[in-house]
Amino acid sequence: MLVLITYDVSTEDKSGRKRLRRVAKLCVDYGVRVQNSVFECELDAAQCRLLKQKLTEEIDETKDSLRFYYLGDIKKAKSEHIGAKPSLKVDEPLIF
Amino acid sequence: MLVLITYDVSTEDKSGRKRLRRVAKLCVDYGVRVQNSVFECELDAAQCRLLKQKLTEEIDETKDSLRFYYLGDIKKAKSEHIGAKPSLKVDEPLIF
Repeated sequence: MLVLITYDVSTEDKSGRKRLRRVAKLCVDYGVRVQNSVFECELDAAQCRLLKQKLTEEIDETKDSLRFYYLGDIKKAKSEHIGAKPSLKVDEPLIF
Repeated sequence: MLVLITYDVSTEDKSGRKRLRRVAKLCVDYGVRVQNSVFECELDAAQCRLLKQKLTEEIDETKDSLRFYYLGDIKKAKSEHIGAKPSLKVDEPLIF
């Protein structure tokens, strides 16, 4: 199943920038970064639960936001991209 | 149909920050902001074509990125949110 993960992590302080890097690194382990804070991950149910739990443990739920969109079969998922591809290193500050 | 729009707009210069504001304002006209650069829009085919054209005209395709995910019937779309809700004013600088 294709799962789209999007997140906003507040980088107003040092701990926020650290959370952002850790969240990005987690997502990179499970999927493809398609935009700064948007990842496409092909996951089975168990992987999805695990990743969701790990991400939830990393964020500050009062400041940060995680969204999961369950797009079903990767072959049937319909999406479109216009513009530049992300050329990002995970450890760069993710300010856009 | 529910269309998820995500974007990355480079804000390294003044023109980029302007593009970001204009892209966000366009999306606000058509949908609900669920994260800084993530919008959920309920659109018919004609509205979708129009919005896509307007957004494409606003961005710099060499620097910015637009993604459209077609999630089908809004009642069937499956998503989940963990953490803080966005509390954003469109004209605020969208740096996260």
